Amino acid sequence: MRLSRYFLPVLKETPAEAQIASHRLMLRAGMIKQASAGIYSWLPMGFKVLKKIEAIVHEEQIRAGHIPMLMPTLQSADLWRESGRYDDYGEEMLRITDRHGRDMLYGPTNEELITDIFRAHVGSYKDLPLTLYHIQWKFRDEIRPRFGVMRGREFYMKDGYNFDIDRDAAIHAYNRHMVSYLRTYERMGLKAIPMRADSGPIGGEDTHEFLVLADTGESEVFYDSAILDLTLGDRQVNYDDRAECAAIVKEWTTPYARTDETHDEAIFAQVPEARRKSSRGIEVGQIFYFGTKYSDPMGAVVTNDKGERLPVHMGSHGIGVSRLVGAIIEASHDENGIIWPEGVTPFHCGIVNLKQGDPEADAACAGLYKALTEKGLDPLYDDREERAGAKFATMDLIGLPWRITVGPRGLKSGVVELTCRRTGTSEEMSPEAAVARVARIYAPHHGAPHWEPMAKSSFHTWL
Amino acid sequence: MRLSRYFLPVLKETPAEAQIASHRLMLRAGMIKQASAGIYSWLPMGFKVLKKIEAIVHEEQIRAGHIPMLMPTLQSADLWRESGRYDDYGEEMLRITDRHGRDMLYGPTNEELITDIFRAHVGSYKDLPLTLYHIQWKFRDEIRPRFGVMRGREFYMKDGYNFDIDRDAAIHAYNRHMVSYLRTYERMGLKAIPMRADSGPIGGEDTHEFLVLADTGESEVFYDSAILDLTLGDRQVNYDDRAECAAIVKEWTTPYARTDETHDEAIFAQVPEARRKSSRGIEVGQIFYFGTKYSDPMGAVVTNDKGERLPVHMGSHGIGVSRLVGAIIEASHDENGIIWPEGVTPFHCGIVNLKQGDPEADAACAGLYKALTEKGLDPLYDDREERAGAKFATMDLIGLPWRITVGPRGLKSGVVELTCRRTGTSEEMSPEAAVARVARIYAPHHGAPHWEPMAKSSFHTWL
Repeated sequence: MRLSRYFLPVLKETPAEAQIASHRLMLRAGMIKQASAGIYSWLPMGFKVLKKIEAIVHEEQIRAGHIPMLMPTLQSADLWRESGRYDDYGEEMLRITDRHGRDMLYGPTNEELITDIFRAHVGSYKDLPLTLYHIQWKFRDEIRPRFGVMRGREFYMKDGYNFDIDRDAAIHAYNRHMVSYLRTYERMGLKAIPMRADSGPIGGEDTHEFLVLADTGESEVFYDSAILDLTLGDRQVNYDDRAECAAIVKEWTTPYARTDETHDEAIFAQVPEARRKSSRGIEVGQIFYFGTKYSDPMGAVVTNDKGERLPVHMGSHGIGVSRLVGAIIEASHDENGIIWPEGVTPFHCGIVNLKQGDPEADAACAGLYKALTEKGLDPLYDDREERAGAKFATMDLIGLPWRITVGPRGLKSGVVELTCRRTGTSEEMSPEAAVARVARIYAPHHGAPHWEPMAKSSFHTWL
Repeated sequence: MRLSRYFLPVLKETPAEAQIASHRLMLRAGMIKQASAGIYSWLPMGFKVLKKIEAIVHEEQIRAGHIPMLMPTLQSADLWRESGRYDDYGEEMLRITDRHGRDMLYGPTNEELITDIFRAHVGSYKDLPLTLYHIQWKFRDEIRPRFGVMRGREFYMKDGYNFDIDRDAAIHAYNRHMVSYLRTYERMGLKAIPMRADSGPIGGEDTHEFLVLADTGESEVFYDSAILDLTLGDRQVNYDDRAECAAIVKEWTTPYARTDETHDEAIFAQVPEARRKSSRGIEVGQIFYFGTKYSDPMGAVVTNDKGERLPVHMGSHGIGVSRLVGAIIEASHDENGIIWPEGVTPFHCGIVNLKQGDPEADAACAGLYKALTEKGLDPLYDDREERAGAKFATMDLIGLPWRITVGPRGLKSGVVELTCRRTGTSEEMSPEAAVARVARIYAPHHGAPHWEPMAKSSFHTWL
């Protein structure tokens, strides 16, 4: 993309209403614009990041054998009366009356709707196991929306639901979700720690939250620092293998890690003192096993192999897709702007032309743009007639992980400059070498990929 | 996908509430389930088709130089009061009050919101031309929702907005949209005819609707049959070239084609009688040029090169993404079920095992599945223990364009059967030849591709 043809309305001023870094930086980098309290428009670059995160979530859910579908945003109140949650839910549920006076609501979650689909279509144990999920906009009428997309009212979330014949099978689904979530966060460059949690209004016995450590987190967390060393890397997981999934879950849940809700000082005291840490954390996902809490009252039953009718065992599993955009920025920025992890960056590489209009510099930039594009990469070329300082400031603000700087002086010696946003280090090399280096950074590799580059695809051309 | 692991709840009975073919077939083929009046859940196969259509729309908009973003579903009433449409819109607008008593609405369209974004961020002619679009859920509180996704209340739509310095530039944007829409529909296997239309509540001078001919269409249409022979094929279009876009628009708008709203018998009478046709049509898109209708009252102005402040010239352009799923089925089905065009089929090819459990048949099917997948194709393997008749009926119902049938008798002679859903013709050949044939069908080719296969991509792996 050439910046002169893009819509990237960066702001010079720090917006007064933004209290935390991600909110401030998303506004300043032209990623979002508030439409009304807690409701945002995603401007082009914000939309790209949102879609990259969505794609990673989809890919890892599919990999785990979960099936994508889509439920609507508005739901009838009737189903929620059936589960008993219509009256329980409180004022955060946005209640709506349609032109015929029927009670509806903007779904904050989908347990009722998915259970209704299940009971209408599934009747036999032979159709299990089954995990369905969707990624859809949800609404929570927060009394004081704040922190930008981190605590908005209209938010984008993946929620998945497993249906299993018994507790053991449902616990395997729980484990499968934990493993797939760990992979998902790793690909986004995040260290998200599973922590034993409270179940809240969803209900259930077993639940873990996934927390990203950041000073601005809403939760206080306590953990054994040994958990920070764990990584899935490029471990291949057979999601049908119960023992394999259970072993990974055990590995990740053995070190102490709890939020303030479930924190136990006595157990924590047993962690060696040097590894005993407390910090703030941002919740980016949660998984639940809740047994027959919804299948019982709503009659979601299957016939087992003995002809008996049994309510299915269920769980639900959520990842905050729009919230992750903010959480990644909270975990990865500096005083100059965002620092995107390679797995979610809106553009793979920036190209800065230090002297727009200079025939040699223009030609070199156009050549770099073409070469990167032909490698399947998506560069952002700042081709505006602006001072070098302004171009650098924009690139630092929007946080592309790699930048190639092209100027007449370097070109005389046949070199451009490749700069790493995270470390700030620069290196001079030929344009060809810079293209090859950037392509290698984004190529699939085996080793310890915390993120995996996404395929060169039609999906990405429209990001 | 193996059918035994998928969620494809086909219905044997024809649902009583469904009056038209697409509604009936989408319910029977397990693509959708009604959640409440005019609101549907998209079950996995329906979701796949919806996403394929969405991907084509995105690709063609990007190709035309339009920039994707995303606006929220809920909007503040304030902006609609500013444009004067809050009171005008009538009962089809779903009005909502939040917990603080603020008036909101579920957006039926986005002229106000996009104009607000524009005026906040753009001030100079140098930032023009600019076309922003999004694909988002919308709501129209129809008094009598019917015809399934064809006239639902919650629907998925692409709407795009151009901002231009003057009328000429805006007319070029209008033409660019017409050309990109023609390409979009062709790739979906649809013949959609642009027809001069009324502007309705959006307003404006110039507008065309795109109509697909089908008996169940809501509009009566009159046209010169010569227009049916027009095709873009693989014509490459330079969307920056005003004359080229205008010439294509002229080619498509010269033959008579109007809906009953704008029909003129006197002009129609000049069409040679043999080419004078009338029919029913389904509207699948509409483009508008409306000048300064929104920019004037809302103050969306830019400074031109003489320093004068002028309201921008705008247009809006919509494609009914969820409606297209129904429209394609209306245009392409028979008494046994759906017939998907290759461009939007949920799976590229079905594999039917006539004798599940027979080691040779099972091995041959597994081999075909693997070979097709390795070619980047997405087969649906019916591996259930079912009678052959039931498997054929399911395949015909769900409408995959190609089917490979595998049975012990054929395998003895080294052959499987490749069947075309549209023609019903079958041909025996080796499994290798069948895989090669199917791969060739979906390979990009130059000639007259009414549809283009989509890249093998991470996007498609999660469909």
